[in-house]
Amino acid sequence: MINLKAVIQYDGTNYKGWQVQNSTGDTIQGRITEVLKELTGENVEVIGSGRTDAGVHALGQVANFHMNMPEGMKISDLLFYINRKLPMDIAVISLEEVDERFHARYSAKTKTYRYRIHVSQVANVFEKRFVYTYLDQVVDVEKIKTAAEALVGTHDFKAFCGNKHMKKTTVRTIYSIEVKDIYDENGLKEICLEYTGDGFLQNMIRIITGTLIEIGNGRKAVSDIQSILEAKDRGNAGFTAPPQGLSLLKVEYS
Amino acid sequence: MINLKAVIQYDGTNYKGWQVQNSTGDTIQGRITEVLKELTGENVEVIGSGRTDAGVHALGQVANFHMNMPEGMKISDLLFYINRKLPMDIAVISLEEVDERFHARYSAKTKTYRYRIHVSQVANVFEKRFVYTYLDQVVDVEKIKTAAEALVGTHDFKAFCGNKHMKKTTVRTIYSIEVKDIYDENGLKEICLEYTGDGFLQNMIRIITGTLIEIGNGRKAVSDIQSILEAKDRGNAGFTAPPQGLSLLKVEYS
Repeated sequence: MINLKAVIQYDGTNYKGWQVQNSTGDTIQGRITEVLKELTGENVEVIGSGRTDAGVHALGQVANFHMNMPEGMKISDLLFYINRKLPMDIAVISLEEVDERFHARYSAKTKTYRYRIHVSQVANVFEKRFVYTYLDQVVDVEKIKTAAEALVGTHDFKAFCGNKHMKKTTVRTIYSIEVKDIYDENGLKEICLEYTGDGFLQNMIRIITGTLIEIGNGRKAVSDIQSILEAKDRGNAGFTAPPQGLSLLKVEYS
Repeated sequence: MINLKAVIQYDGTNYKGWQVQNSTGDTIQGRITEVLKELTGENVEVIGSGRTDAGVHALGQVANFHMNMPEGMKISDLLFYINRKLPMDIAVISLEEVDERFHARYSAKTKTYRYRIHVSQVANVFEKRFVYTYLDQVVDVEKIKTAAEALVGTHDFKAFCGNKHMKKTTVRTIYSIEVKDIYDENGLKEICLEYTGDGFLQNMIRIITGTLIEIGNGRKAVSDIQSILEAKDRGNAGFTAPPQGLSLLKVEYS
Protein backbone atom coordinates (compact mmCIF):
# COMPACT_ATOMS: atom_id res chain seq x y z
CA MET A 1 0.00 0.00 0.00
CA ILE A 2 1.24 3.46 -0.78
CA ASN A 3 -0.27 6.77 0.25
CA LEU A 4 -0.86 9.17 -2.63
CA LYS A 5 -1.52 12.91 -2.47
CA ALA A 6 -3.53 14.36 -5.37
CA VAL A 7 -4.12 18.01 -6.27
CA ILE A 8 -7.49 18.31 -7.98
CA GLN A 9 -9.22 20.97 -10.08
CA TYR A 10 -12.90 21.03 -10.88
CA ASP A 11 -15.62 23.13 -12.38
CA GLY A 12 -18.27 22.40 -9.75
CA THR A 13 -21.22 23.68 -11.81
CA ASN A 14 -22.66 20.25 -12.55
CA TYR A 15 -21.85 18.52 -9.24
CA LYS A 16 -23.50 18.10 -5.85
CA GLY A 17 -20.25 19.13 -4.20
CA TRP A 18 -17.11 17.24 -3.21
CA GLN A 19 -18.48 14.72 -0.75
CA VAL A 20 -20.37 11.52 -1.55
CA GLN A 21 -23.88 11.89 -0.11
CA ASN A 22 -26.25 9.25 1.16
CA SER A 23 -28.77 10.38 -1.40
CA THR A 24 -27.98 10.01 -5.06
CA GLY A 25 -26.03 12.79 -6.74
CA ASP A 26 -22.94 13.24 -8.78
CA THR A 27 -19.97 14.26 -6.61
CA ILE A 28 -16.28 14.85 -7.28
CA GLN A 29 -15.19 12.37 -4.58
CA GLY A 30 -17.59 9.82 -6.05
CA ARG A 31 -16.17 10.20 -9.55
CA ILE A 32 -12.57 9.73 -8.39
CA THR A 33 -13.52 6.75 -6.20
CA GLU A 34 -15.22 5.09 -9.20
CA VAL A 35 -12.12 5.48 -11.36
CA LEU A 36 -9.91 3.88 -8.67
CA LYS A 37 -12.40 1.07 -8.16
CA GLU A 38 -12.44 0.35 -11.88
CA LEU A 39 -8.64 0.17 -11.88
CA THR A 40 -7.99 -1.81 -8.69
CA GLY A 41 -11.26 -3.64 -8.07
CA GLU A 42 -11.10 -2.30 -4.52
CA ASN A 43 -12.97 0.38 -2.61
CA VAL A 44 -10.27 3.00 -2.20
CA GLU A 45 -11.16 5.67 0.36
CA VAL A 46 -10.50 9.10 -1.15
CA ILE A 47 -9.99 11.60 1.71
CA GLY A 48 -10.48 15.24 0.78
CA SER A 49 -9.11 18.24 2.70
CA GLY A 50 -12.72 19.20 3.29
CA ARG A 51 -16.10 19.40 1.62
CA THR A 52 -16.99 21.95 -0.98
CA ASP A 53 -20.68 22.78 -1.50
CA ALA A 54 -22.69 21.98 -4.61
CA GLY A 55 -21.65 24.39 -7.38
CA VAL A 56 -18.38 25.45 -5.73
CA HIS A 57 -15.16 25.08 -7.76
CA ALA A 58 -11.57 24.14 -6.92
CA LEU A 59 -8.21 25.13 -8.37
CA GLY A 60 -6.31 23.22 -5.70
CA GLN A 61 -8.40 20.76 -3.71
CA VAL A 62 -6.17 18.15 -2.05
CA ALA A 63 -7.00 14.51 -1.38
CA ASN A 64 -5.08 11.43 -0.34
CA PHE A 65 -5.73 7.73 -0.68
CA HIS A 66 -3.98 4.50 0.24
CA MET A 67 -3.87 1.94 -2.54
CA ASN A 68 -2.04 -1.01 -3.98
CA MET A 69 -0.43 0.07 -7.22
CA PRO A 70 -1.09 -2.41 -10.04
CA GLU A 71 2.14 -4.23 -10.90
CA GLY A 72 4.40 -2.30 -13.24
CA MET A 73 2.34 0.87 -13.04
CA LYS A 74 4.23 4.08 -12.30
CA ILE A 75 2.68 7.08 -10.57
CA SER A 76 2.88 9.06 -13.83
CA ASP A 77 0.94 6.24 -15.55
CA LEU A 78 -1.71 6.41 -12.83
CA LEU A 79 -2.05 10.18 -13.27
CA PHE A 80 -2.56 9.65 -16.98
CA TYR A 81 -5.05 6.81 -16.39
CA ILE A 82 -7.15 8.80 -13.91
CA ASN A 83 -7.35 11.86 -16.18
CA ARG A 84 -8.36 9.75 -19.15
CA LYS A 85 -11.24 8.27 -17.12
CA LEU A 86 -12.44 11.42 -15.36
CA PRO A 87 -15.05 13.68 -16.99
CA MET A 88 -13.70 16.84 -18.62
CA ASP A 89 -14.68 19.09 -15.71
CA ILE A 90 -12.52 17.25 -13.15
CA ALA A 91 -8.73 16.92 -13.42
CA VAL A 92 -5.98 15.59 -11.18
CA ILE A 93 -3.17 18.06 -11.83
CA SER A 94 -0.51 16.31 -9.74
CA LEU A 95 -0.03 13.03 -7.94
CA GLU A 96 2.83 12.10 -5.60
CA GLU A 97 3.67 9.48 -3.00
CA VAL A 98 3.63 10.85 0.55
CA ASP A 99 4.33 9.60 4.07
CA GLU A 100 1.81 7.00 5.22
CA ARG A 101 0.70 9.34 8.03
CA PHE A 102 -0.25 12.17 5.66
CA HIS A 103 -4.00 12.85 5.91
CA ALA A 104 -5.53 15.45 3.58
CA ARG A 105 -7.95 16.72 6.24
CA TYR A 106 -6.11 16.30 9.57
CA SER A 107 -2.72 17.43 8.24
CA ALA A 108 -4.06 20.61 6.60
CA LYS A 109 -2.70 23.82 8.14
CA THR A 110 -4.37 26.54 6.09
CA LYS A 111 -6.93 26.82 3.35
CA THR A 112 -7.41 29.66 0.90
CA TYR A 113 -10.71 30.34 -0.82
CA ARG A 114 -11.55 33.01 -3.38
CA TYR A 115 -14.95 34.62 -3.94
CA ARG A 116 -15.46 36.62 -7.16
CA ILE A 117 -18.23 39.21 -7.49
CA HIS A 118 -18.77 40.63 -10.98
CA VAL A 119 -20.26 44.13 -10.64
CA SER A 120 -19.81 45.73 -14.09
CA GLN A 121 -22.67 46.94 -16.29
CA VAL A 122 -21.43 44.41 -18.81
CA ALA A 123 -21.59 40.68 -18.09
CA ASN A 124 -18.40 38.60 -18.17
CA VAL A 125 -19.67 36.12 -20.74
CA PHE A 126 -16.64 33.85 -20.61
CA GLU A 127 -16.44 33.44 -16.83
CA LYS A 128 -20.07 33.58 -15.83
CA ARG A 129 -19.85 30.06 -14.41
CA PHE A 130 -17.14 31.23 -11.98
CA VAL A 131 -18.40 34.59 -10.73
CA TYR A 132 -21.43 35.85 -8.84
CA THR A 133 -22.95 38.27 -11.34
CA TYR A 134 -24.21 41.29 -9.45
CA LEU A 135 -24.73 43.60 -12.42
CA ASP A 136 -24.73 47.34 -12.09
CA GLN A 137 -24.83 47.55 -8.32
CA VAL A 138 -23.18 50.36 -6.44
CA VAL A 139 -20.69 48.72 -4.12
CA ASP A 140 -18.29 50.65 -1.90
CA VAL A 141 -15.11 48.57 -1.82
CA GLU A 142 -13.54 50.66 0.97
CA LYS A 143 -16.39 49.73 3.31
CA ILE A 144 -15.90 46.06 2.46
CA LYS A 145 -12.16 46.34 3.21
CA THR A 146 -12.77 47.96 6.60
CA ALA A 147 -15.44 45.46 7.62
CA ALA A 148 -13.33 42.51 6.47
CA GLU A 149 -10.47 43.60 8.76
CA ALA A 150 -12.74 43.17 11.80
CA LEU A 151 -13.11 39.47 10.99
CA VAL A 152 -9.41 38.68 10.80
CA GLY A 153 -8.13 36.83 13.87
CA THR A 154 -9.47 34.10 16.14
CA HIS A 155 -13.19 34.48 16.78
CA ASP A 156 -16.32 32.48 17.42
CA PHE A 157 -17.88 32.58 13.95
CA LYS A 158 -21.25 31.12 15.04
CA ALA A 159 -23.07 34.05 13.38
CA PHE A 160 -21.60 32.94 10.04
CA CYS A 161 -22.25 29.19 10.36
CA GLY A 162 -24.81 27.66 7.99
CA ASN A 163 -25.34 24.59 10.21
CA LYS A 164 -27.90 25.48 12.88
CA HIS A 165 -27.25 22.27 14.79
CA MET A 166 -23.46 22.57 14.91
CA LYS A 167 -22.38 20.89 18.15
CA LYS A 168 -18.61 21.26 17.84
CA THR A 169 -16.68 24.49 18.35
CA THR A 170 -17.43 27.37 16.01
CA VAL A 171 -14.14 29.11 16.84
CA ARG A 172 -11.88 29.53 13.82
CA THR A 173 -8.88 31.67 12.88
CA ILE A 174 -8.90 33.79 9.73
CA TYR A 175 -5.31 34.77 8.89
CA SER A 176 -6.19 37.23 6.15
CA ILE A 177 -8.95 38.54 3.92
CA GLU A 178 -7.57 40.22 0.81
CA VAL A 179 -10.04 42.46 -0.99
CA LYS A 180 -9.06 43.19 -4.60
CA ASP A 181 -10.93 45.63 -6.83
CA ILE A 182 -10.46 45.13 -10.56
CA TYR A 183 -11.30 47.89 -13.04
CA ASP A 184 -11.78 48.14 -16.79
CA GLU A 185 -12.70 51.02 -19.12
CA ASN A 186 -16.30 50.94 -17.81
CA GLY A 187 -15.20 51.33 -14.17
CA LEU A 188 -15.28 48.78 -11.35
CA LYS A 189 -15.56 45.34 -12.91
CA GLU A 190 -14.96 42.77 -10.20
CA ILE A 191 -14.43 42.47 -6.47
CA CYS A 192 -12.36 39.49 -5.49
CA LEU A 193 -12.19 38.33 -1.86
CA GLU A 194 -9.44 35.92 -0.82
CA TYR A 195 -9.86 34.25 2.56
CA THR A 196 -7.04 32.33 4.27
CA GLY A 197 -7.74 30.54 7.53
CA ASP A 198 -7.14 27.38 9.57
CA GLY A 199 -10.54 26.07 8.46
CA PHE A 200 -14.02 27.32 7.71
CA LEU A 201 -17.48 26.37 9.01
CA GLN A 202 -20.28 25.23 6.71
CA ASN A 203 -21.22 28.09 4.33
CA MET A 204 -19.03 30.43 6.42
CA ILE A 205 -17.28 32.13 3.49
CA ARG A 206 -20.53 32.50 1.54
CA ILE A 207 -22.30 34.06 4.57
CA ILE A 208 -19.37 36.40 5.32
CA THR A 209 -19.31 37.39 1.64
CA GLY A 210 -23.07 38.03 1.60
CA THR A 211 -22.70 40.17 4.73
CA LEU A 212 -19.80 42.14 3.21
CA ILE A 213 -21.85 42.74 0.05
CA GLU A 214 -24.69 44.13 2.20
CA ILE A 215 -22.17 46.43 3.89
CA GLY A 216 -20.76 47.45 0.51
CA ASN A 217 -24.16 48.32 -0.92
CA GLY A 218 -25.21 50.23 2.22
CA ARG A 219 -27.91 47.90 3.49
CA LYS A 220 -25.78 47.32 6.58
CA ALA A 221 -23.30 49.67 8.26
CA VAL A 222 -19.58 48.94 8.52
CA SER A 223 -19.90 48.99 12.32
CA ASP A 224 -22.55 46.24 12.18
CA ILE A 225 -19.91 43.61 11.51
CA GLN A 226 -18.66 43.79 15.11
CA SER A 227 -22.14 43.42 16.64
CA ILE A 228 -23.04 40.58 14.24
CA LEU A 229 -19.88 38.72 15.29
CA GLU A 230 -20.55 39.29 19.00
CA ALA A 231 -24.25 38.37 18.97
CA LYS A 232 -23.41 34.94 17.48
CA ASP A 233 -26.81 34.80 15.77
CA ARG A 234 -27.01 33.68 12.12
CA GLY A 235 -30.16 35.81 11.75
CA ASN A 236 -28.15 39.03 12.10
CA ALA A 237 -25.66 38.22 9.33
CA GLY A 238 -26.28 38.77 5.60
CA PHE A 239 -27.48 36.45 2.86
CA THR A 240 -25.58 33.37 1.76
CA ALA A 241 -23.78 34.40 -1.43
CA PRO A 242 -24.39 31.86 -4.22
CA PRO A 243 -21.93 28.98 -4.72
CA GLN A 244 -20.71 29.74 -8.25
CA GLY A 245 -18.50 32.65 -7.14
CA LEU A 246 -16.52 30.45 -4.75
CA SER A 247 -13.35 28.44 -5.47
CA LEU A 248 -11.00 26.54 -3.17
CA LEU A 249 -7.63 27.91 -4.28
CA LYS A 250 -5.17 25.93 -2.18
CA VAL A 251 -4.59 23.85 0.91
CA GLU A 252 -1.26 24.12 2.69
CA TYR A 253 0.49 21.49 4.79
CA SER A 254 3.46 21.91 7.10
CA MET B 1 -31.79 57.90 -37.42
CA ILE B 2 -28.32 57.39 -36.04
CA ASN B 3 -25.82 54.71 -36.95
CA LEU B 4 -24.43 52.80 -33.98
CA LYS B 5 -21.35 50.60 -33.84
CA ALA B 6 -21.40 47.85 -31.20
CA VAL B 7 -18.55 45.62 -30.02
CA ILE B 8 -19.99 42.30 -28.90
CA GLN B 9 -18.70 39.36 -26.84
CA TYR B 10 -20.32 35.95 -26.71
CA ASP B 11 -19.85 32.44 -25.49
CA GLY B 12 -21.14 30.70 -28.61
CA THR B 13 -21.59 27.27 -26.96
CA ASN B 14 -25.38 27.41 -26.89
CA TYR B 15 -26.00 29.26 -30.18
CA LYS B 16 -26.45 28.34 -33.82
CA GLY B 17 -23.89 30.97 -34.76
CA TRP B 18 -24.09 34.71 -35.38
CA GLN B 19 -26.48 34.88 -38.30
CA VAL B 20 -30.26 34.48 -38.19
CA GLN B 21 -31.14 31.37 -40.19
CA ASN B 22 -34.26 30.55 -42.15
CA SER B 23 -34.73 27.50 -39.97
CA THR B 24 -35.39 27.99 -36.28
CA GLY B 25 -32.41 28.31 -34.01
CA ASP B 26 -31.08 30.64 -31.40
CA THR B 27 -28.54 33.09 -32.88
CA ILE B 28 -26.61 36.06 -31.53
CA GLN B 29 -27.88 38.40 -34.24
CA GLY B 30 -31.42 37.22 -33.52
CA ARG B 31 -31.10 37.93 -29.80
CA ILE B 32 -29.83 41.48 -30.35
CA THR B 33 -32.49 42.18 -32.99
CA GLU B 34 -35.20 41.06 -30.53
CA VAL B 35 -33.95 43.41 -27.83
CA LEU B 36 -33.97 46.38 -30.25
CA LYS B 37 -37.44 45.44 -31.51
CA GLU B 38 -38.74 45.30 -27.96
CA LEU B 39 -37.33 48.78 -27.30
CA THR B 40 -38.25 50.57 -30.54
CA GLY B 41 -41.15 48.53 -31.92
CA GLU B 42 -39.25 48.47 -35.21
CA ASN B 43 -37.30 45.84 -37.12
CA VAL B 44 -33.76 47.15 -36.74
CA GLU B 45 -31.31 45.48 -39.11
CA VAL B 46 -28.23 44.41 -37.13
CA ILE B 47 -25.30 44.08 -39.56
CA GLY B 48 -22.41 41.92 -38.33
CA SER B 49 -18.84 42.08 -39.64
CA GLY B 50 -19.36 38.50 -40.74
CA ARG B 51 -20.91 35.20 -39.66
CA THR B 52 -19.45 33.01 -37.01
CA ASP B 53 -20.33 29.30 -37.05
CA ALA B 54 -22.44 27.51 -34.44
CA GLY B 55 -20.35 27.08 -31.29
CA VAL B 56 -17.75 29.71 -32.22
CA HIS B 57 -17.10 32.52 -29.70
CA ALA B 58 -16.29 36.21 -30.01
CA LEU B 59 -14.28 38.63 -27.88
CA GLY B 60 -14.73 41.47 -30.36
CA GLN B 61 -17.44 40.89 -32.97
CA VAL B 62 -18.53 44.21 -34.49
CA ALA B 63 -22.01 45.12 -35.69
CA ASN B 64 -23.77 48.31 -36.72
CA PHE B 65 -27.41 49.32 -36.92
CA HIS B 66 -29.40 52.40 -37.87
CA MET B 67 -32.12 53.29 -35.40
CA ASN B 68 -34.25 56.08 -34.01
CA MET B 69 -33.18 56.67 -30.43
CA PRO B 70 -36.16 56.85 -28.07
CA GLU B 71 -36.56 60.44 -26.86
CA GLY B 72 -34.35 61.35 -23.93
CA MET B 73 -32.33 58.13 -24.16
CA LYS B 74 -28.55 58.51 -24.21
CA ILE B 75 -26.23 56.00 -25.82
CA SER B 76 -24.95 54.96 -22.39
CA ASP B 77 -28.57 54.26 -21.35
CA LEU B 78 -29.04 52.13 -24.46
CA LEU B 79 -25.89 50.14 -23.67
CA PHE B 80 -27.24 49.49 -20.19
CA TYR B 81 -30.71 48.57 -21.52
CA ILE B 82 -29.36 46.10 -24.09
CA ASN B 83 -27.12 44.35 -21.58
CA ARG B 84 -29.95 44.02 -19.08
CA LYS B 85 -32.11 42.33 -21.73
CA LEU B 86 -29.49 40.08 -23.33
CA PRO B 87 -28.85 36.58 -21.94
CA MET B 88 -25.76 36.23 -19.75
CA ASP B 89 -23.64 34.69 -22.52
CA ILE B 90 -23.93 37.70 -24.85
CA ALA B 91 -22.70 41.20 -23.95
CA VAL B 92 -22.33 44.47 -25.81
CA ILE B 93 -19.09 45.83 -24.38
CA SER B 94 -19.18 49.21 -26.17
CA LEU B 95 -21.58 51.26 -28.22
CA GLU B 96 -20.81 54.49 -30.11
CA GLU B 97 -22.34 56.68 -32.79
CA VAL B 98 -20.50 56.43 -36.11
CA ASP B 99 -20.70 57.99 -39.57
CA GLU B 100 -23.86 57.01 -41.43
CA ARG B 101 -21.75 55.31 -44.11
CA PHE B 102 -20.05 52.95 -41.64
CA HIS B 103 -20.94 49.35 -42.48
CA ALA B 104 -19.68 46.58 -40.18
CA ARG B 105 -19.09 44.17 -43.08
CA TYR B 106 -18.09 46.36 -46.04
CA SER B 107 -15.93 48.75 -44.03
CA ALA B 108 -13.92 45.99 -42.30
CA LYS B 109 -10.24 45.96 -43.22
CA THR B 110 -8.86 43.05 -41.19
CA LYS B 111 -10.16 40.34 -38.93
CA THR B 112 -8.26 38.40 -36.30
CA TYR B 113 -9.34 34.95 -35.12
CA ARG B 114 -7.75 32.76 -32.48
CA TYR B 115 -7.82 28.97 -32.35
CA ARG B 116 -6.82 27.28 -29.06
CA ILE B 117 -5.73 23.63 -28.95
CA HIS B 118 -5.30 22.14 -25.47
CA VAL B 119 -2.74 19.32 -25.69
CA SER B 120 -1.75 18.62 -22.07
CA GLN B 121 -2.25 15.28 -20.28
CA VAL B 122 -4.44 17.22 -17.87
CA ALA B 123 -7.72 18.80 -19.02
CA ASN B 124 -8.23 22.53 -18.60
CA VAL B 125 -11.42 22.19 -16.58
CA PHE B 126 -12.16 25.92 -16.43
CA GLU B 127 -11.77 26.69 -20.13
CA LYS B 128 -12.99 23.51 -21.75
CA ARG B 129 -15.79 25.43 -23.48
CA PHE B 130 -13.18 27.60 -25.26
CA VAL B 131 -10.50 25.13 -26.32
CA TYR B 132 -10.29 22.09 -28.56
CA THR B 133 -9.21 19.41 -26.13
CA TYR B 134 -6.71 17.17 -27.86
CA LEU B 135 -5.40 15.34 -24.79
CA ASP B 136 -2.00 13.75 -24.70
CA GLN B 137 -1.19 14.01 -28.37
CA VAL B 138 2.34 14.45 -29.60
CA VAL B 139 2.33 17.65 -31.61
CA ASP B 140 5.45 19.19 -33.16
CA VAL B 141 4.93 22.95 -32.89
CA GLU B 142 7.94 23.74 -35.12
CA LYS B 143 6.33 21.86 -38.01
CA ILE B 144 3.10 23.83 -37.52
CA LYS B 145 5.05 27.11 -37.55
CA THR B 146 6.83 26.23 -40.79
CA ALA B 147 3.67 25.06 -42.54
CA ALA B 148 1.71 28.11 -41.37
CA GLU B 149 4.29 30.43 -42.99
CA ALA B 150 3.50 28.95 -46.41
CA LEU B 151 -0.11 30.14 -46.10
CA VAL B 152 0.70 33.77 -45.35
CA GLY B 153 0.10 36.07 -48.32
CA THR B 154 -2.48 36.32 -51.09
CA HIS B 155 -3.58 32.90 -52.33
CA ASP B 156 -6.54 31.06 -53.73
CA PHE B 157 -7.72 29.23 -50.58
CA LYS B 158 -10.24 27.00 -52.40
CA ALA B 159 -8.67 23.91 -50.78
CA PHE B 160 -9.63 25.31 -47.38
CA CYS B 161 -13.18 26.41 -48.22
CA GLY B 162 -16.05 24.56 -46.53
CA ASN B 163 -18.60 25.66 -49.12
CA LYS B 164 -18.42 23.28 -52.08
CA HIS B 165 -20.68 25.48 -54.17
CA MET B 166 -18.82 28.74 -53.61
CA LYS B 167 -19.29 30.81 -56.77
CA LYS B 168 -17.44 33.98 -55.77
CA THR B 169 -13.67 34.33 -55.58
CA THR B 170 -11.83 32.14 -53.09
CA VAL B 171 -8.77 34.41 -53.12
CA ARG B 172 -7.97 35.91 -49.74
CA THR B 173 -4.98 37.54 -48.06
CA ILE B 174 -3.65 36.24 -44.75
CA TYR B 175 -1.42 38.92 -43.20
CA SER B 176 -0.08 36.75 -40.40
CA ILE B 177 -0.45 33.47 -38.55
CA GLU B 178 1.07 33.62 -35.08
CA VAL B 179 1.73 30.24 -33.50
CA LYS B 180 2.15 30.39 -29.71
CA ASP B 181 3.15 27.41 -27.59
CA ILE B 182 2.25 27.62 -23.91
CA TYR B 183 3.91 25.39 -21.34
CA ASP B 184 3.25 24.42 -17.72
CA GLU B 185 5.03 22.08 -15.30
CA ASN B 186 3.71 19.05 -17.22
CA GLY B 187 5.14 20.28 -20.54
CA LEU B 188 3.35 21.63 -23.59
CA LYS B 189 -0.13 22.70 -22.51
CA GLU B 190 -1.68 24.68 -25.33
CA ILE B 191 -1.06 25.70 -28.91
CA CYS B 192 -2.68 28.96 -29.83
CA LEU B 193 -3.01 30.03 -33.47
CA GLU B 194 -3.83 33.65 -34.28
CA TYR B 195 -4.90 34.39 -37.84
CA THR B 196 -5.14 37.93 -39.25
CA GLY B 197 -6.45 38.47 -42.76
CA ASP B 198 -8.66 40.60 -44.97
CA GLY B 199 -11.44 38.02 -44.66
CA PHE B 200 -11.91 34.28 -44.40
CA LEU B 201 -13.96 31.76 -46.37
CA GLN B 202 -16.54 29.52 -44.74
CA ASN B 203 -14.81 27.15 -42.26
CA MET B 204 -11.44 28.32 -43.65
CA ILE B 205 -9.71 28.79 -40.30
CA ARG B 206 -11.07 25.53 -38.94
CA ILE B 207 -9.89 23.60 -42.04
CA ILE B 208 -6.46 25.28 -41.98
CA THR B 209 -6.20 24.49 -38.26
CA GLY B 210 -7.19 20.85 -38.82
CA THR B 211 -4.58 20.59 -41.58
CA LEU B 212 -1.88 22.15 -39.37
CA ILE B 213 -2.76 19.70 -36.56
CA GLU B 214 -2.32 16.79 -39.01
CA ILE B 215 1.08 18.22 -39.96
CA GLY B 216 2.00 18.67 -36.29
CA ASN B 217 1.09 15.09 -35.40
CA GLY B 218 2.92 13.66 -38.42
CA ARG B 219 -0.07 12.42 -40.42
CA LYS B 220 0.84 14.91 -43.14
CA ALA B 221 4.28 16.28 -44.08
CA VAL B 222 5.22 19.97 -43.77
CA SER B 223 5.80 20.07 -47.53
CA ASP B 224 2.21 18.88 -48.16
CA ILE B 225 0.86 22.33 -47.34
CA GLN B 226 2.15 23.75 -50.62
CA SER B 227 0.66 21.00 -52.77
CA ILE B 228 -2.68 21.17 -50.92
CA LEU B 229 -2.85 24.91 -51.58
CA GLU B 230 -1.97 24.48 -55.25
CA ALA B 231 -4.33 21.57 -55.98
CA LYS B 232 -7.31 23.66 -54.74
CA ASP B 233 -9.14 20.50 -53.69
CA ARG B 234 -10.85 20.39 -50.28
CA GLY B 235 -10.34 16.62 -50.23
CA ASN B 236 -6.57 17.06 -49.87
CA ALA B 237 -6.73 19.31 -46.81
CA GLY B 238 -7.14 18.11 -43.22
CA PHE B 239 -10.21 17.73 -41.00
CA THR B 240 -12.37 20.66 -39.93
CA ALA B 241 -11.26 21.46 -36.39
CA PRO B 242 -14.28 21.71 -34.04
CA PRO B 243 -15.89 25.13 -33.44
CA GLN B 244 -15.35 25.48 -29.68
CA GLY B 245 -11.62 26.29 -30.05
CA LEU B 246 -12.34 29.29 -32.29
CA SER B 247 -12.95 32.91 -31.26
CA LEU B 248 -13.26 36.09 -33.31
CA LEU B 249 -10.83 38.39 -31.48
CA LYS B 250 -11.20 41.70 -33.31
CA VAL B 251 -12.27 43.45 -36.48
CA GLU B 252 -10.34 46.51 -37.61
CA TYR B 253 -11.58 49.45 -39.65
CA SER B 254 -9.55 52.16 -41.33
